[in-house]
Amino acid sequence: MVTIRALEERILKEGRVLPGEVLKVGSFLNQQIDTALLTEMGQEIARLFGDSKVTKILTIESSGIAIAVAAGCALGVPVVFAKKHASNNMSGEVFTSKVFSYTHQKTFDVVVSADYLKPDDNILVVDDFLAKGGALNGLFDIIGQSGAKLAGAAIAIEKGFQGGGDALRAKGIRVESLAIIDSMSDTSLTFREQ
Amino acid sequence: MVTIRALEERILKEGRVLPGEVLKVGSFLNQQIDTALLTEMGQEIARLFGDSKVTKILTIESSGIAIAVAAGCALGVPVVFAKKHASNNMSGEVFTSKVFSYTHQKTFDVVVSADYLKPDDNILVVDDFLAKGGALNGLFDIIGQSGAKLAGAAIAIEKGFQGGGDALRAKGIRVESLAIIDSMSDTSLTFREQ
Repeated sequence: MVTIRALEERILKEGRVLPGEVLKVGSFLNQQIDTALLTEMGQEIARLFGDSKVTKILTIESSGIAIAVAAGCALGVPVVFAKKHASNNMSGEVFTSKVFSYTHQKTFDVVVSADYLKPDDNILVVDDFLAKGGALNGLFDIIGQSGAKLAGAAIAIEKGFQGGGDALRAKGIRVESLAIIDSMSDTSLTFREQ
Repeated sequence: MVTIRALEERILKEGRVLPGEVLKVGSFLNQQIDTALLTEMGQEIARLFGDSKVTKILTIESSGIAIAVAAGCALGVPVVFAKKHASNNMSGEVFTSKVFSYTHQKTFDVVVSADYLKPDDNILVVDDFLAKGGALNGLFDIIGQSGAKLAGAAIAIEKGFQGGGDALRAKGIRVESLAIIDSMSDTSLTFREQ
């Protein structure tokens, strides 16, 4: 059992399907965050990956940070977030990759200071959404540059019909999503049984 | 007692002073987050504002999200984060203000959907840094537009020598910072006793 019913129920109740296969969940996940649901999601991720010897969580700003922090608190490991632009207080060696954002319809650079990912790390990637997998592939690329191991990926909401999650699973990567949407439209939304 | 000694110790041990009075704390607060320290900070904020009938926390992406989530989990209230740019899945009425970022040396728009701040809310503003108060004033402006009440502000690290916190306190706003730096240079850093 991976699915969190409370998450599915909130998606059904408050999620809104916008043009371009965008699912808006701003009332409880982004940009307003229900901290009780978030805590439950973090604990479920910790349960799923509790035996995986995760040393660190990697996510991407901004909307991945909340769920990554919840998972990091539950697993007792630090969280690192990739920035979408190099900032002027990031100095020294960095790992960087390019990511195409489905939501924003543009490509941007993601950057992590090389100080925070090391070859002896075993990294769990956490994010709020998985669609075509662009953000995850960018973060996997960065993990590869660091020499760290990849423990897998934990996602709040996967848009299963966009195929990114299943393509990663077919490559042997462990991807766990707390809710997988197999189809959605203005009038209906169906979840994958898992 | 407001100060968290463990936070002061980490600032002394790992903080780096960069040109332009920038304090880099990327190894434990941004962009790597020590979740144990973060949890302690959230609990201290909850202790400070536990009697203030806070209904919601407001912060600003990206680096405010982690500490806001920790405080929201400890207080048992939702977290709303202001976005620095309107995104294409933000629709309907919004509250907006302009903020000058000291770190990035530029002005940007901050935006919150009007759905998430209501006149019966009592809002605690949470952020990682307070310098001249630009971000806080932008968030206070947004709260004013919503008609909600302001419970106060809780900050991880205040650069006291830049004066923003004391200017707000002089206006009667409750501002609590878990560490206040009264002076800093390449070679020394002193905290305010509080």
